[in-house]
Amino acid sequence: MIPQMALVMGDPAGIGPELMAGLLARADDLADAGVVAIGDRRVLAKGERALGITLELETCRGQGNLRPAEPGRPLFYDMGNIDPEELPPGTASALGGKSALENFALALDMARDGRVDAITFVPFNKEALRLGGNPFDDEMSFAADRLGHQGAVAEFNVVDKLWNARVTSHVALRDVADLITEERLLEHLDLAVRALKEAGFDRPRIAVAALNPHAGDGGSFGREEIDVIEPAVHKARRLAEAQGFVVEGPFPSDTVFVRARDGHFDAVLTMFHDQGQIAIKLLGFDRGITVLYGFTVPITTPAHGTAYDIAGRGIARLEPTRLAFNMAKQMAKSRAGRS
Amino acid sequence: MIPQMALVMGDPAGIGPELMAGLLARADDLADAGVVAIGDRRVLAKGERALGITLELETCRGQGNLRPAEPGRPLFYDMGNIDPEELPPGTASALGGKSALENFALALDMARDGRVDAITFVPFNKEALRLGGNPFDDEMSFAADRLGHQGAVAEFNVVDKLWNARVTSHVALRDVADLITEERLLEHLDLAVRALKEAGFDRPRIAVAALNPHAGDGGSFGREEIDVIEPAVHKARRLAEAQGFVVEGPFPSDTVFVRARDGHFDAVLTMFHDQGQIAIKLLGFDRGITVLYGFTVPITTPAHGTAYDIAGRGIARLEPTRLAFNMAKQMAKSRAGRS
Repeated sequence: MIPQMALVMGDPAGIGPELMAGLLARADDLADAGVVAIGDRRVLAKGERALGITLELETCRGQGNLRPAEPGRPLFYDMGNIDPEELPPGTASALGGKSALENFALALDMARDGRVDAITFVPFNKEALRLGGNPFDDEMSFAADRLGHQGAVAEFNVVDKLWNARVTSHVALRDVADLITEERLLEHLDLAVRALKEAGFDRPRIAVAALNPHAGDGGSFGREEIDVIEPAVHKARRLAEAQGFVVEGPFPSDTVFVRARDGHFDAVLTMFHDQGQIAIKLLGFDRGITVLYGFTVPITTPAHGTAYDIAGRGIARLEPTRLAFNMAKQMAKSRAGRS
Repeated sequence: MIPQMALVMGDPAGIGPELMAGLLARADDLADAGVVAIGDRRVLAKGERALGITLELETCRGQGNLRPAEPGRPLFYDMGNIDPEELPPGTASALGGKSALENFALALDMARDGRVDAITFVPFNKEALRLGGNPFDDEMSFAADRLGHQGAVAEFNVVDKLWNARVTSHVALRDVADLITEERLLEHLDLAVRALKEAGFDRPRIAVAALNPHAGDGGSFGREEIDVIEPAVHKARRLAEAQGFVVEGPFPSDTVFVRARDGHFDAVLTMFHDQGQIAIKLLGFDRGITVLYGFTVPITTPAHGTAYDIAGRGIARLEPTRLAFNMAKQMAKSRAGRS
């Protein structure tokens, strides 16, 4: 199965243009996918200049001309929506943010209509997106709105082979404990299991982090482990054998990442944002990728930002973008294989 | 100034005996301190055998015979309180815990009476301490009780050159937010500044972690940064120049440790237990040390545990014990120099 992939130009003032150009020059990554790259052709040209390369890309304009791309022969869909000469260089701007949102919106529309099987975008800048008209906190909410998606979604962070999933995210720490319910935990565990399987883990091993220090030390400081997390893990374990995954925990959150880093688990399900982010960032998240999951199609992006300070110099590392693209491709293939 | 140091035998069934024996064989570490080592001489002999060495130590018994030790000539105070032949090997036991508590209690009494300037202990086992009669959660509470200490105390974790201090510790996560007060934050900042200065930092640079994800993102998820932490940091900065320290923050807790690891800060003051422990353990805390601070004397210990599984094999790394001992010595000297 040859998946159709949308490759989305993100912020045009950062390293996105050279990352997209670099990826479109990788025959090995493109050979088994049809790729529709979406952006302004002049912005991509800036990326080519940064790398000292010239891409020979078929380019089309006008949505009536959009068609599936053949493997190894990416199609560039020229939005013609921003002149890089008018763009304030190396900074977040409304102009840049607006173009990135438009590019992303088209990819989401194509996903909604079944015309692409996965989306990868090169970095957005949240501030530019806001200036450019994104009424939401982040790109995940923008995507959910555009897709009319109602169900649970998750943001996974992946560094090396270790995945981090979380039960709660952008909420005040004082509200976290009340949000840790058995239902929510099992829902996010299920999203993680499905995502990991699509990512190629036959029998993913998932560690569930505790909420309280020393996992509450038998109820001495906090009872959520006893009252909520242990029963949820217990319930999940009853499904684990049949569904082909392993789940263990709750483990004290200060040691679970050491064990996961050392290869004992494929993923850690954390209870709140910083519990995972502290670990993931120390493990080298700028090498990693982010997966937005639960939508019609998997959406991936390199974990690093727009890196305005080095934009245009051709020194940005392509590896995280390749990892993101190949992950989206792998997940799309897995889905097709199952359906 | 030659400090008097108490070196305390911890759990006799772990690697403590060989760590104490190894340290007592280090002429370089002992040259500028008077050391009274406290334990059972037969337990220390077990450590010597593990290392294949024989220590020539002056040994005394009976508290009437306790006297200051000369630099480079450690004195062993033989408690005669446990026969290693009777000890269950490689496990936590009431017998082992009781002897460790007795050793520690004598060192604390000597500190209270002004007979030692610092204490270092080789690892305790919390479970053995409990079985052996410690009515408290940990050794810090035992020490506070024995010393009749009323004021604030802190446990610092140090790995490489990075210190972690925390405003709250063994409390349920749901209670953390209400415990973050300006008074408590400034109290723990002050303890950290004093400890770092005694440890040799002329002008310690301390980063204060935020409580909420993305430091609350301008109040979007949590207001503690705006209402409590920022005002506290602002207040502290007014003292910083005169008192010779630097304080910055609040910083999102998922990036502050990356910056600290990369050398931008000497210490991170975290708001709750796992915020720091996740980072410190990933950074390699088993290489590090723990400092109990705020008492009459500084108390230090290697951060690792009793390592029952490798006890007696002579392969335990001595470095963390040396770091703990030399840190206590350094802090005792700094105090003497100031008084």
